[in-house]
Parts: sequence; C-alpha cells; structure tokens
Amino acid sequence: MPAMDNSTQPSFLNGQSTAFLSAFDRGLYYGHGLFETLRVCRGEIPLWSLHRARLLAGAERLGLTVSSELLEQYRDQLLLAAAAPADGVMKIIITAGEGGRGYAAPDKLVTSYLLQWFPLPENNNYAASGIQLWVSEQRLADSPSLAGIKHLNRLEQVLARAEQAVESYPEGLMLDNNGNVIEAIASNLFCYREGVWFTPVLNRCGVAGVMREYLLANHVVEQCDIILAELTSMDEIFICNSVKGICPVIAIDGVGEWSVGSITQQWQQQLRDDLGWGELVCFG
Amino acid sequence: MPAMDNSTQPSFLNGQSTAFLSAFDRGLYYGHGLFETLRVCRGEIPLWSLHRARLLAGAERLGLTVSSELLEQYRDQLLLAAAAPADGVMKIIITAGEGGRGYAAPDKLVTSYLLQWFPLPENNNYAASGIQLWVSEQRLADSPSLAGIKHLNRLEQVLARAEQAVESYPEGLMLDNNGNVIEAIASNLFCYREGVWFTPVLNRCGVAGVMREYLLANHVVEQCDIILAELTSMDEIFICNSVKGICPVIAIDGVGEWSVGSITQQWQQQLRDDLGWGELVCFG
Repeated sequence: MPAMDNSTQPSFLNGQSTAFLSAFDRGLYYGHGLFETLRVCRGEIPLWSLHRARLLAGAERLGLTVSSELLEQYRDQLLLAAAAPADGVMKIIITAGEGGRGYAAPDKLVTSYLLQWFPLPENNNYAASGIQLWVSEQRLADSPSLAGIKHLNRLEQVLARAEQAVESYPEGLMLDNNGNVIEAIASNLFCYREGVWFTPVLNRCGVAGVMREYLLANHVVEQCDIILAELTSMDEIFICNSVKGICPVIAIDGVGEWSVGSITQQWQQQLRDDLGWGELVCFG
Repeated sequence: MPAMDNSTQPSFLNGQSTAFLSAFDRGLYYGHGLFETLRVCRGEIPLWSLHRARLLAGAERLGLTVSSELLEQYRDQLLLAAAAPADGVMKIIITAGEGGRGYAAPDKLVTSYLLQWFPLPENNNYAASGIQLWVSEQRLADSPSLAGIKHLNRLEQVLARAEQAVESYPEGLMLDNNGNVIEAIASNLFCYREGVWFTPVLNRCGVAGVMREYLLANHVVEQCDIILAELTSMDEIFICNSVKGICPVIAIDGVGEWSVGSITQQWQQQLRDDLGWGELVCFG
C-alpha cells in the first residue's frame, strides 16, 4: 500500500473539523468503540439504515450511548464537506470517549463521534474477472460477546492482511480455531451448491457485514458451520462487503478453482438495479 | 470510577507535548499497537528493562519498529515533565501510526510514541488485608499469535471489568473458553500448594505481566494449565502487577476462601527490599 496523506481528508470529531482525537480516548486505549465503512454514491448512502442498526446493536453490546439524531447530523455535515453529491467512502468511528488509566469506564461516558471521508478504492475489475483467495494462517478466536459487531479490536485482521501483499492477493480467507470458514479479511463469504445458498454462521466470531445482512434479507440463504474442505464441493462462491459489493471467487489456494458463477452474476446485477449504484457497485 | 480530568496530565507524542493523536492512527482504527503501564518510584522505574523487553517482543509480533533509544529519550522527557523524582504511573502507548482506510499497512509505517503520566492509584490496604475476586462471565479467547503481549485490543478486559463495580470488586478472575484460569483482569495469578508455586501458562491467551516475569525470574514457579476447581485445593493465592505489586487473594466467589498467606507475605517483603519501593509496593 502506498503511503496516504490524510491531511486533506475531511474529518470531523463531534461536529468539529479536526484530524485529531484525544490521546486519552478509550477507543485508542482499549479499542472501546465501533466503526462502519459506508459506500456513498452520488451523495446517497443506500445501506444507511443497516449500518445504523449494526452500530446501535454494537453500542448496546459495548455499553456505549449512540444518538441516531447526532449520527445523522454528523453524517450530513460530512457529506456537505465532501461536496456531495459525490462517490466515496465514509468511515464512522464511535468510541467510549475519554477515560482514566484503567479498564473501568468513568461513571459518565461521553461518546466520541468521528466521521471521515475517503476516495473510492480503485476499480480493478475483480467483480467481473473474479478473485483468488489465500487461506490465512491467522485464526479468528471464539468470542461470542464480541461476535458479529464491528468493534475496534481488529488485530486478527491486521495480522492476516500482513501475510500477503494486496497486489498478489486482494483478499484472504479466515477460519476459526476449529477449521470452520468464517469470512474473508474485510468481507463475508457466500457459497452455492445444488440449489442452496450458504453463508457461515457468525455467533462465535466474525463480523456480520452490512452487505451480508442486505443479501440475507433479500434471498434465501442457510446460515451454518462450513468446514474448509466443504468448499471443494460448491458450485459458486463469492465474497461481499458494503463498499465493494459482490465479487466472485475463482480460486482458493489448496482448496479449488471455480468459474465466475452465473447466479453470482445475477445477484450482482440485482444489486446494481436495486441499490442504483451502477457499474461501480462491484469492483472487487 | 469518578470522571478524570486529563487536561492536566503530562502527555507527549513523539517528543511533543500534546493531549492529541492523529484521528487516522492505526492504534485507534484497529488497536494496531501496544502499551505498558510502569510504576515510577522517586523518579526511578525499577522494572524498566522488563517493560522494554515486553514492548520490543510485542512490536516484533505486530510488525512495528520500536527504537530503544527514542523510547528512553521520551521516557526521560516525561520523567522531567512530571517533576521527578516523583511517584506515579507512566503509560507508554506505541502504535503503527497513520495509515489509510484498510487493514493493509502502508509501505512505510511511522511508529507513534505516546507517553503519559498519571498519579498513583489510591492505596486501599488490600495488600495487607487481601482481596476478594469474582469470576468473570467474559472468557478470554484463544489467540496464540496475540497471547502474552500487551496489545491495544482489550475489549475482553473492558467487558469483564464492566460486570462489577470497582468499589465492590477491585479485581475479577478470567478463564478461557475451556474453563482454565488465565489471569485477573489487570493482573496475573499465582497459587501455592504443598511446597510448589504455580501460575497459568499464557501461550494461548492472557497478558504476560512484567511483575509475573520478575517473579518467575526470582522464584521457582511451575507454569501449567489450572482448572478453576483446582484453586479450591490451594494453600495460598495472590495476584500481582507491576503497578500494584503483590496482593493476597482471600476469597473467590463460588470457589473458596483463604487466609492471607505467610509465603505470600514473604514475597511481598522481598519485593519491598529488592525493588526499594517501600510500603507503597503492594496496595491492592
């Protein structure tokens, strides 16, 4: 990854334009917080309600108070600053705010709302050509109280991502300690066999992605345990997230190879039609 | 915990006095970093070399570059700002610095060194009277690549600590998913039975505390798996960390009760003698 100059990225903390956060924030100290990464298309965020719902569910889990009103006020402020209508990515970080030195939260937590704007990632045509995954050595640990939500404790993903260059492998597959397929590093996995779609159940580890939620609400998909070797027998596999849409998987190292699936392509087209994101919806 | 006003705490980032950090720092984004909490006694840090060693080992694990020279330069700068010789607590946070939006690190990571000064916690006499622990519902997940080091992904500790008020239970016991005793929320556990000291092995989860390291270097202690029920048969139990020293455990909810152990008291005395911390060494 080339170095990025963040000094020109629009960034707001609690409604104030700033590129800084308190060095005493519990988000930094312990990862006591959550984040969302949202696709903005011509000034709109088609999956806003799903992002907000996950954020509120995560806040409940971590003992944070999040105001939907403030969230939407700050969202609109960032969209305005980014000269919307524009295409881009909005990052929202919610933290428990400042605390003292120890793990115990202060009596009164004051939530920090940090919203930042990023350009869309490069369209590298993976949505059409498909993608090859490696299987990460880094396993996802079982932690039911943290499973599903998008909290700020992401060292497993950082270590997994560091195993391979992005240029060689844009995504990697992650398993749990029992060898179950859970997700890709920054996306969720769906697979299809003989008329049935499957996706890993995420009640012990993994992030329940917003695009995954969207697809589960719009298609019949079975959530279950999937051992790595079971992928060999699948007819189609894809990964998805809310920034990049749906991307076919055409190879998993040591597991198998696939063609770009025809039903996967139908789902991609449906996303383009339903969310109105045009061709940019699925760029791998 | 009462609210804390951090605005008066000495705080330095890369040698500059500031209470702020970049809002694009990977320490905030993903917890991509490490921390140390060091007891300062009359301007000295008796366990400095052990803290530094753990920090360097953790940096190796997380792909961070840490310069011992810079670390010691910034340490001395903070000691000076805190008007040492003084008693207090130094917090050191090392992060991977600024990055872009994704998990992949930039080609060139620029390490952030954040050093902060805090007053000593209150001496509540637990070191003499002993302490009662509850058994946390929150389990520590197996993650060998992260075990032992003091990284910034600490939501398990945050959730465990939130189960009970500090005033009722100053510390809680944490188990792994298999029911093994691993550590207390912010300290390590030692126990003694029939002439032998034991402490949990920390190769799958847990933080290998600096005080634990110090005691292992100065006493014969067996590192092994310890199931919760095994604690019932122990003659003495204590917890320890590098800020609070050694604190006897006199009760664990649902497990058993103990007297303040006589060998534990000998170890406390030896700490006072060897590290020269005087009476403040063990305040629970």
